[in-house]
Amino acid sequence: MKENPQATAGATGRSQGARKSREIFDATLDLLADQGYDGLTVEGVALRAGVNKTTLYRHWPTKGALVRAALIGAGRLELDVPDTGSLRGDLEALVRQVVSLLTAPPASDVVVAALGAATRAPELADAAADFFADRLVREQAVFDRAAARGELPADVDPALVMDLLAGAVWLRVVLRRRPLEPDYPARAVAAVLHGTAPNAG
Amino acid sequence: MKENPQATAGATGRSQGARKSREIFDATLDLLADQGYDGLTVEGVALRAGVNKTTLYRHWPTKGALVRAALIGAGRLELDVPDTGSLRGDLEALVRQVVSLLTAPPASDVVVAALGAATRAPELADAAADFFADRLVREQAVFDRAAARGELPADVDPALVMDLLAGAVWLRVVLRRRPLEPDYPARAVAAVLHGTAPNAG
Repeated sequence: MKENPQATAGATGRSQGARKSREIFDATLDLLADQGYDGLTVEGVALRAGVNKTTLYRHWPTKGALVRAALIGAGRLELDVPDTGSLRGDLEALVRQVVSLLTAPPASDVVVAALGAATRAPELADAAADFFADRLVREQAVFDRAAARGELPADVDPALVMDLLAGAVWLRVVLRRRPLEPDYPARAVAAVLHGTAPNAG
Repeated sequence: MKENPQATAGATGRSQGARKSREIFDATLDLLADQGYDGLTVEGVALRAGVNKTTLYRHWPTKGALVRAALIGAGRLELDVPDTGSLRGDLEALVRQVVSLLTAPPASDVVVAALGAATRAPELADAAADFFADRLVREQAVFDRAAARGELPADVDPALVMDLLAGAVWLRVVLRRRPLEPDYPARAVAAVLHGTAPNAG
């Protein structure tokens, strides 16, 4: 195969850029978890990630823009879109990812701090809303595959299904602070797919 | 009927005490919404409610205890346990109350600020958890009546049902910041009662 130095250099450049972005996003989330949104500064992120703060400002002109990019781009918050072959299996895998995101440090420290603080900082609230919108776009694949398998009625709203499932975990873990039984994801998914009270009027 | 002055005086005393508590709880929630949990002080509440701060400390020895009492005892956060005659009607009414709690000021300012901040203040997190535990105890009546009417299978977990429904509204309104369509409560309740994908494996 003929070598293409330019393409190789380009790929290396992109790869280095991606690695650097990853370090910047990690630094942003670490500081967010440590110091809260109010305490976070672009200067602090630059110092921690070992980059020039003008570089940061060039890519992300505000603190809100940087946090938004970090929430969506950081590897530790990445959504692993499941493909288990059934809607039930895929939704259970998604719920387990939410559980892990909200209970397993270090991701849980960041997520709970960032999303909790979103209620008081409008900029951060926008970043959090974008984070959820981005996840929903990627979760759509689960519902498309279920529809193709004939598992999903045409009138089902994926956003409602994910609101119910992810919201339940959030409420249980973050607000109720109740332990989450190992069978909780399966029970929650069964409830949303098959209902809890078929005889109810 | 023979008058009993002492009982009358006692009832008046209790009623005045209840009114005073209500004012103290209102002042606590107002300041919590304005200044956040960190900015809230027992002295500030005493000043706003027109009571002596030693009186406050006698009843609620810590800021956390005062906030916990205010979240559970304040009239504006009170749960109106519905009794519509059907599980569907009762759950829809409960969901509409959650919607109102999270979207209609002034209650929504307090609730969103207090529960959001719970992710960073352990004392406040305990108060928020008690708030939800107290609501679940009162919501149990809805499930007891549904079971008595034969609407509810014996293995249904009311906490899971309320996690799904209240969590969905929280996620949609506070975290996703998406508008809530008027039919959302009915759709969410239908999903949890009757399921969304009966053919899913």
